Amino acid sequence: MRLNASCEFCDSPGGPVLWRNDVCRVVRVDEPAYPGFVRVILNRHATEMGDLDAAERDRLMAVVFAVEAAVRETMRPDKMNLASLGNMTPHVHWHVVPRYRDDRHFPHPVWAAAQREAAVPEERARRAADLSAAIRRRIGE
Amino acid sequence: MRLNASCEFCDSPGGPVLWRNDVCRVVRVDEPAYPGFVRVILNRHATEMGDLDAAERDRLMAVVFAVEAAVRETMRPDKMNLASLGNMTPHVHWHVVPRYRDDRHFPHPVWAAAQREAAVPEERARRAADLSAAIRRRIGE
Repeated sequence: MRLNASCEFCDSPGGPVLWRNDVCRVVRVDEPAYPGFVRVILNRHATEMGDLDAAERDRLMAVVFAVEAAVRETMRPDKMNLASLGNMTPHVHWHVVPRYRDDRHFPHPVWAAAQREAAVPEERARRAADLSAAIRRRIGE
Repeated sequence: MRLNASCEFCDSPGGPVLWRNDVCRVVRVDEPAYPGFVRVILNRHATEMGDLDAAERDRLMAVVFAVEAAVRETMRPDKMNLASLGNMTPHVHWHVVPRYRDDRHFPHPVWAAAQREAAVPEERARRAADLSAAIRRRIGE
């Protein structure tokens, strides 16, 4: 059910699509400070995880956790962050964010005030290019 | 495996315990601006969701989603927020946060800069008292 006259994630993919199936898609987040930051977006419109039945929820979470594993092995972060918020875009999606002790916001969430100016190491940005292949390997499709 | 000499969620429950089983516990978060905010904390020490095997992960997430449903039905928020971050306390736990358009940070995450001073409606604070019973009903134990 579409709750909004206009929903960003109904009207557009929400970013470059790295992988998709019938339930959801994985998109790259355009955030230069955070290479390897991806979102897993439900294809159909639903506002809350609690609006999904158990089968759909399990299929979505299997992708979220496979993507988490792919991001972790590719990006080698100090910590992984997962979040389903949707206050701005109330269409079910998961943020999957590799975090480093020297990143802009650590140890705070990426939505908090920046703690420092932080240049992204070149090697880190380079690794993000392997993410699409890693996701495919992890999901086995 | 304990990665830290001292881990807050190994050394203490992490708040008043509303419910627990062998895998995890549900604790009330002491945050007056957010009645109904709870955390689901893994009992054993693990740093990342990706360190759990599928069976343990599924059992934990079943509790997280049951708690989400209990919070939603009890607190009747405008939006639910779920997050597993752990940058400060790297011991697997989930934040389950009922959000309202008039709360301190909306539409931003609760970790962002406050948007306004916001008194919590009395009725909202009262509802939070029913949470423990609602969680028990949802989990069916």
